Amino acid sequence: MIQERLEKLRQAMRERGIDCCLIPTSDYHDSEYVSGFFRVREFFSGFTGSAGTLVVSLREAALFTDGRYFIQAERQLQGTGIRLMKIGEPDVPSLKDYLDQTLQEGECLGLDGRVVKARDAAQYEEILGRKHGRLSWDQDLAEGIWEERPRLVHQPVYVLEERCSGESTASKIARVREKMKEEGATVHILTTLDDIAWLFNIRGNDVKCCPVVLAYAVITMEKALLFAREEQAAAGKEAWSSQVQSYLEENGITLLPYEDFYSHISALHGEKALLCLERVNCRVKKELAEDVEIIDKSNPTTLMKAVKNPVEMENLRVCHLKDGVAVTHFMYWLKTNVGKIPMTELSAADQLEGLRRQQEGFIEPSFGTICAFGANGAIVHYSATPEDFARIRPEGLLVVDSGGHYPEGSTDITRTFALGPLTGDMKKHFTLVLKAMLNLKSTRFLYGCRGLNLDVRAREALWEYGLDYKHGTGHGVGYLLNVHEGPNGFRWKMVEHEENAVLEEGMVTTDEPGLYIEGSHGIRIENELLCRRGEENEYGQFMYFEDLTCVPIDLDALEPSLMTDTDRARLNTYHRQVFERLSPYFEGEELAWLKEATREI
Amino acid sequence: MIQERLEKLRQAMRERGIDCCLIPTSDYHDSEYVSGFFRVREFFSGFTGSAGTLVVSLREAALFTDGRYFIQAERQLQGTGIRLMKIGEPDVPSLKDYLDQTLQEGECLGLDGRVVKARDAAQYEEILGRKHGRLSWDQDLAEGIWEERPRLVHQPVYVLEERCSGESTASKIARVREKMKEEGATVHILTTLDDIAWLFNIRGNDVKCCPVVLAYAVITMEKALLFAREEQAAAGKEAWSSQVQSYLEENGITLLPYEDFYSHISALHGEKALLCLERVNCRVKKELAEDVEIIDKSNPTTLMKAVKNPVEMENLRVCHLKDGVAVTHFMYWLKTNVGKIPMTELSAADQLEGLRRQQEGFIEPSFGTICAFGANGAIVHYSATPEDFARIRPEGLLVVDSGGHYPEGSTDITRTFALGPLTGDMKKHFTLVLKAMLNLKSTRFLYGCRGLNLDVRAREALWEYGLDYKHGTGHGVGYLLNVHEGPNGFRWKMVEHEENAVLEEGMVTTDEPGLYIEGSHGIRIENELLCRRGEENEYGQFMYFEDLTCVPIDLDALEPSLMTDTDRARLNTYHRQVFERLSPYFEGEELAWLKEATREI
Repeated sequence: MIQERLEKLRQAMRERGIDCCLIPTSDYHDSEYVSGFFRVREFFSGFTGSAGTLVVSLREAALFTDGRYFIQAERQLQGTGIRLMKIGEPDVPSLKDYLDQTLQEGECLGLDGRVVKARDAAQYEEILGRKHGRLSWDQDLAEGIWEERPRLVHQPVYVLEERCSGESTASKIARVREKMKEEGATVHILTTLDDIAWLFNIRGNDVKCCPVVLAYAVITMEKALLFAREEQAAAGKEAWSSQVQSYLEENGITLLPYEDFYSHISALHGEKALLCLERVNCRVKKELAEDVEIIDKSNPTTLMKAVKNPVEMENLRVCHLKDGVAVTHFMYWLKTNVGKIPMTELSAADQLEGLRRQQEGFIEPSFGTICAFGANGAIVHYSATPEDFARIRPEGLLVVDSGGHYPEGSTDITRTFALGPLTGDMKKHFTLVLKAMLNLKSTRFLYGCRGLNLDVRAREALWEYGLDYKHGTGHGVGYLLNVHEGPNGFRWKMVEHEENAVLEEGMVTTDEPGLYIEGSHGIRIENELLCRRGEENEYGQFMYFEDLTCVPIDLDALEPSLMTDTDRARLNTYHRQVFERLSPYFEGEELAWLKEATREI
Repeated sequence: MIQERLEKLRQAMRERGIDCCLIPTSDYHDSEYVSGFFRVREFFSGFTGSAGTLVVSLREAALFTDGRYFIQAERQLQGTGIRLMKIGEPDVPSLKDYLDQTLQEGECLGLDGRVVKARDAAQYEEILGRKHGRLSWDQDLAEGIWEERPRLVHQPVYVLEERCSGESTASKIARVREKMKEEGATVHILTTLDDIAWLFNIRGNDVKCCPVVLAYAVITMEKALLFAREEQAAAGKEAWSSQVQSYLEENGITLLPYEDFYSHISALHGEKALLCLERVNCRVKKELAEDVEIIDKSNPTTLMKAVKNPVEMENLRVCHLKDGVAVTHFMYWLKTNVGKIPMTELSAADQLEGLRRQQEGFIEPSFGTICAFGANGAIVHYSATPEDFARIRPEGLLVVDSGGHYPEGSTDITRTFALGPLTGDMKKHFTLVLKAMLNLKSTRFLYGCRGLNLDVRAREALWEYGLDYKHGTGHGVGYLLNVHEGPNGFRWKMVEHEENAVLEEGMVTTDEPGLYIEGSHGIRIENELLCRRGEENEYGQFMYFEDLTCVPIDLDALEPSLMTDTDRARLNTYHRQVFERLSPYFEGEELAWLKEATREI
């Protein structure tokens, strides 16, 4: 099937004079997760992971993806003829180097400029320039080939009340304008959906699990334009209720059709446009007139949004407690029923979602649950499907990585559960991963540190044993928004143009080391951490992390002999806190179990 | 005296139409330590630290220096009217921001372009541009004011044999030419003294404690020009013996007068010049013709020189053993004689230098010894002088930071010694600093890590207690060259344009956390670490550090209750190794003492 599709694609390429085409995983807004309409890379390659770039020339095809997806991509690409390029592995060229090798003198590279970052496209043009080739940036290559392509939908929009957001839209826009003044900008072009949703205090459902609204925004000192309305919505299907429209009007925001954005920006003249070339797509840059000066900076909203305000912080504590109650009920259900009732990766995930739904205000999962049994746990972003899933047996380990959206915020939590007898290695690995997680979250540090400085606090526990995990240690989390949101994160490798922000009070970052033994087992343990100010003294401002996540760590998987006194004290303190916060929501046998599950070791 | 000199300086500024002048601490080669001729900032400010920039306008004067020198600078600037600007402290502007505030519309900034980095000068010009002012870059403002200024001397040069360097000059130049080809350069302009000494396998004595040779170099694919000869050396005072000259000839190197460099580069045309704007001075850039294309990259020699070859690595082990024997003899002398014979910071430093001189091949100290008793230890780069020194009494702590140059390399070691009764705080602080040092040196890490990632391994031990030290945790060390050599180092703060290289096998970096309690005591413990390759497995190439430094840690200053089992094991392993390596060089009572000094705890 994939080979047939690729054949059709190459036919279309020949017709259009394209020698090579590039199909990334994105929408028009540089989103990480995309709705069905945008899953072109998946359509042409069969690879369903959330990250990957497909390059198809008339001669060969290659898919670039990262360490989270090596095992999954290997499986899914079998028989397609597509070469898997494991990013970061020795002898694997970067995408840019690969294009440099693949593109011949005078060739044409085709892509849809709306789904490629402006900065990336500029790099491809640099390569093409050297080869006297050209970039054709208006090629939506799925058109005419992907017959059953889903529609681009605009779902109903709602306003996030100030008791949730903690700050009015007017105040947020005023802060953005302050920042524009500082940068000498007269207009700000904003295309990233999480930034737009945050800035306008609106939420929607245009991407599965991401409560964003498909929209572009243009801010000037006088106006705030929101390009988001479907021009010809079916009767009664208008995404923008009159209530929401009034709210926008009250806040001085003009709602315009989604489709009008490009013609609007192409009509700008003599402006100084603040925009982020790392985030806007290639077409945005191409549409701007030559007399528009680009001020290439991070979107001001990115940092503002990452620093949660006091109302958001307080709400997050509430939402994590609700979520913790649901996940802990799940843990009890899982541990007491495994081997007694039939259970699969899918039914267990359903059970967990059902428990979350019982929590007040629960909206939807914040991403597709990863429920991976045994060897499946070694696939970092495993996803069971109705066609391919495992039965859960009373043995080994189960990794469950899941989260929920609530009016009080979004959660992301991973626990690894012992379902029966474990090997010595499993216990050792679980304990090392736990030590890594505890190490990082207990770090006290001086203001000014970035995730880059602190990532090693987690990895040291594994590196000591010659072990590692091929993913970042953590990422920022949005507030009822995207579950992966920068600019904060825990990573150790420096990547050009990748932000690794100074950790500010109010930032939420996950702490999720793991260990993946192919064909055997996987482990990941994840808490969300809220960055807080501690003591300020002559050495500077000290910072620490507050645990948001409130769910027991499975003591059945622990090898206590590997825990130092410090490790034990950290775990016991966490469990004491978990019991104190959760116990009011449990009773009878389940409460007794919780007491035992959070016992001192 | 200082006020008088500043008055004369301002008089000269008025005469030359200069409104503000900038006097950094550098020579024509961006050296960290400079010979007497270049100590203009010291002459005009009275501040003797190794780092600092003086800005004098007709209205005010300010001296910028970093955390190592805050206490010292405060003392030395008293009564001069010069404002101390503590770099990195809150509310202290950066040098650039200060200039921006100080320079008025249309004003002229004067400086000697030979002692200012090209990149820095470009930033000043950018500020001046906005204010319609100008940069006057040929102002040696000490001329005519500093009457007793030392001469610029060219000391005798010698060749470093291949049994020491491990690689011939011809091979090194060939590697540089390879790198030039990669970068598309036709000429390479090299002005940094450590790079030149390394590349040509020559050593001299033109800067105190830095065995470098005042020189500029220009490398093309055919020629290697060394601008280093004194044009009119006094009879019998020629720094270049006929032997050294023959060696240069054999290696295809042309020796030219030092003074001819600028006229030579100003005559280059149509070349593609590889040079480092972060390292060459402003005049180099100003002298280049407009048709010379600048390829702004790190000097290739910087990384090559930092990665010690197998011969150098083996020699370093020898040199550190010799040095360890000397310092350990000193430790014995100090600990057994304190309170019994008269001792001062100066006489103790002399004693240590005398013991180093007894080591075969010892050349000279690698920097001015810091021997700081009691509260003086809190001054990070304290330097006792014949006018101002302390007597050493049998109480408290003594910090000794020193090193030596040998044909087998250079050393840099700090030990803090207990000389008598200590307070609880002193013991606690000593133990925390030791834990920090042991933590970092025991780190096992994946290839790709930079000092930026690992610095926290040291600081975590102090941060946990709300303590810190205001200096980097470590710096690269040259081979019979500068004691501070990049591009490797342990720092946690990201600084623009400051390299923080990936740690490669063969790099030598110091591990020297400290703690400084103003008015009470200081502690610093420093080992040099050789980066080595460890196991390579599916996770990547693991790396570890080998201890080069071989001197006991003073157990009398330790608070064992603060040491975890891991800390103890690390210290005991180190001490076992120290005893094994040193004991053949000790006998009788001193051997018995060494046994005790390296005992298990």
